Amino acid sequence: LTDITARTSIVTIPLSELETPVPVVDLDRLGRNLDRAAEYATRHGLALRPHIKTHKSPRIAREQLTRGAVGLTCATPFEAEVMSGVCHDLLVAFPPVGQARAKRIATLPDNVDVTVALDSLASVKVIAEAARAADRRIGVYVELDLGMHRVGVPVVDDAIALARAVCALPPLEFSGIAFYPGHVREPVGAAQTGKLESLAKSVSDVIAAFDRAGVRPRVVSGGSTPTLWNTHEITGVTEFRPGTYVYNDRTTAEIGACGWDDCAFTVLATVVSTAVPHQAVIDAGSKALGREPMRGADAKDGFGALLDRPEVTVASMSEEHGILDLSKTAWRPQVGERVRVVPNHVCVVVHLNDVIAGARGDAVETTWPVAARGRGYTIDV
Amino acid sequence: LTDITARTSIVTIPLSELETPVPVVDLDRLGRNLDRAAEYATRHGLALRPHIKTHKSPRIAREQLTRGAVGLTCATPFEAEVMSGVCHDLLVAFPPVGQARAKRIATLPDNVDVTVALDSLASVKVIAEAARAADRRIGVYVELDLGMHRVGVPVVDDAIALARAVCALPPLEFSGIAFYPGHVREPVGAAQTGKLESLAKSVSDVIAAFDRAGVRPRVVSGGSTPTLWNTHEITGVTEFRPGTYVYNDRTTAEIGACGWDDCAFTVLATVVSTAVPHQAVIDAGSKALGREPMRGADAKDGFGALLDRPEVTVASMSEEHGILDLSKTAWRPQVGERVRVVPNHVCVVVHLNDVIAGARGDAVETTWPVAARGRGYTIDV
Repeated sequence: LTDITARTSIVTIPLSELETPVPVVDLDRLGRNLDRAAEYATRHGLALRPHIKTHKSPRIAREQLTRGAVGLTCATPFEAEVMSGVCHDLLVAFPPVGQARAKRIATLPDNVDVTVALDSLASVKVIAEAARAADRRIGVYVELDLGMHRVGVPVVDDAIALARAVCALPPLEFSGIAFYPGHVREPVGAAQTGKLESLAKSVSDVIAAFDRAGVRPRVVSGGSTPTLWNTHEITGVTEFRPGTYVYNDRTTAEIGACGWDDCAFTVLATVVSTAVPHQAVIDAGSKALGREPMRGADAKDGFGALLDRPEVTVASMSEEHGILDLSKTAWRPQVGERVRVVPNHVCVVVHLNDVIAGARGDAVETTWPVAARGRGYTIDV
Repeated sequence: LTDITARTSIVTIPLSELETPVPVVDLDRLGRNLDRAAEYATRHGLALRPHIKTHKSPRIAREQLTRGAVGLTCATPFEAEVMSGVCHDLLVAFPPVGQARAKRIATLPDNVDVTVALDSLASVKVIAEAARAADRRIGVYVELDLGMHRVGVPVVDDAIALARAVCALPPLEFSGIAFYPGHVREPVGAAQTGKLESLAKSVSDVIAAFDRAGVRPRVVSGGSTPTLWNTHEITGVTEFRPGTYVYNDRTTAEIGACGWDDCAFTVLATVVSTAVPHQAVIDAGSKALGREPMRGADAKDGFGALLDRPEVTVASMSEEHGILDLSKTAWRPQVGERVRVVPNHVCVVVHLNDVIAGARGDAVETTWPVAARGRGYTIDV
């Protein structure tokens, strides 16, 4: 199959003919975003293992792999199952808790190298049992909490004990340590530098402690989209797992981890009502855009902003209605007019859709399914 | 097919064997919720036209129709297409703007009576053109803004002018007026009574003005789940369109429009990490629960609460992680333990899923697809 970012068809349809609301990806921007991260990884000798939760698409995953990604990161068993069709090196960066989840991970196709990230003895036991039942090696990253306070072992000695427990339970294999710097979301500046330095110190200390204990981590896996371009400053990190960078979004632009012109993903919407004065209503509400506020102390308002008029935000939403705030613009749209909304958080928007349209300028060239959307389980009753 | 709320199978599987996260509906509660609204409609001589956006399922829709619903309300063309399989009287309560949308509405199966709600001359024109092209009668409700300030004509003379424009454009037919009282969300009490009285006055005034103008509205369509049990107090309303009442949710219980024991819909989730002190992490985050805050001045925290421990809330979320706030409980869950989360806003949660499990107690008896999830369009490129 042709590179998704290259021209794939001379037969195109104009954006104006699409039914709305519909997710549209700018193929040129997607290509630039893919290239830039791949070049960064090469330049700094880092292994790029993108998180596919953002796109949930084997077609985009293949573009990441073609550009040098060492493997893929997934969150759910279904994501891993779908991605096993295009990649033979998968990390499931979510605690493998629950027999059904562990079994699905352990029964991925034989030609896939599988690694899981975990933070508890309970999860070690369940994945070890599933690995034995399936007679397959499963790699394990021990997850540490280095400030995000979501998952991860907070005490390094406990993490080392967990690594030793993994070593004692073949066919599990201790493969490395992982962390997620989701708490570092500041724009470039003093606050970000301080947090990154503190994080780098923590990473160094953890690696040193693991080394001293004789359980040297082969891989040190960290990194997000907000810290993407700073990954090389966190000494010791060998692998990074950004997701959002393929499409980017309003939050990523606000943090400064991309420019507004790097936002490749928009929801094309139609103005359906201007009856109530001082506002315009579009056909993209929480079921098309997700209800994700901007974060931080001086966070901007709204649930998304117009690509061509970033001063116009989706100020409030119902399920199928988005209310545009026109207070910062002289623009007064007509019923039927179309807009492209850059969502605050693209990952949840992709998850709301089955199909994405790929366009260059105003010409839709291709579509692709969000193949790993949903859970992919059956309930046999 | 058997009533979904009756026992459908003697072969059941226990909740404990389901993979998580998974949406589970309590069939007994669903049955009670369906019965109660139907009885209310009968008692007060009101036409119940439930909004199917909440369940998006023909199977639940059929139960509503069996219990006396006069027809169904939909928001999207796809919802209408799916529901046309079980119902021949559909209202699309969303402005029919855009040629593709209008065409899909106008080309619903011939045996379906179709009505649309609209608030602009532009939308009258586009649906009239589609109706003429399809050579079919389409009913029109003129939508008024009676305080919600989302869509709807705010000035009654303008609404009358729109009704006259509809009358002049056969095969369109002026069928009535519609409004949505989404701004009345107070719990039972003085504030709610005041808002309802004000709303009832507006409705009476509007009806009187239409009558005087010689465009008597055959149907006056209003009503939501928060105002469900007060619909009869809004004199003049002939039809109501609640959606959420089939499942209910934390918001509906908080408003007092249902009891906690009437919440039929939960997301079954598994505790996947307790590594970070003072919290437990479940495998249901924003991609399973939606990020819908409680509303109002003294709104409760969190994005959902545990069915059996409503004092435990999902305090924060990532895409696949939900963080349980354990500060108000002595309960300390173990990794692997299961919980059932009542979401804040059930409609967006259903929209995240493809299949719903139906259980009685801890026994899963049946499943049904969320058949009208998604948009149902094709992009021919």
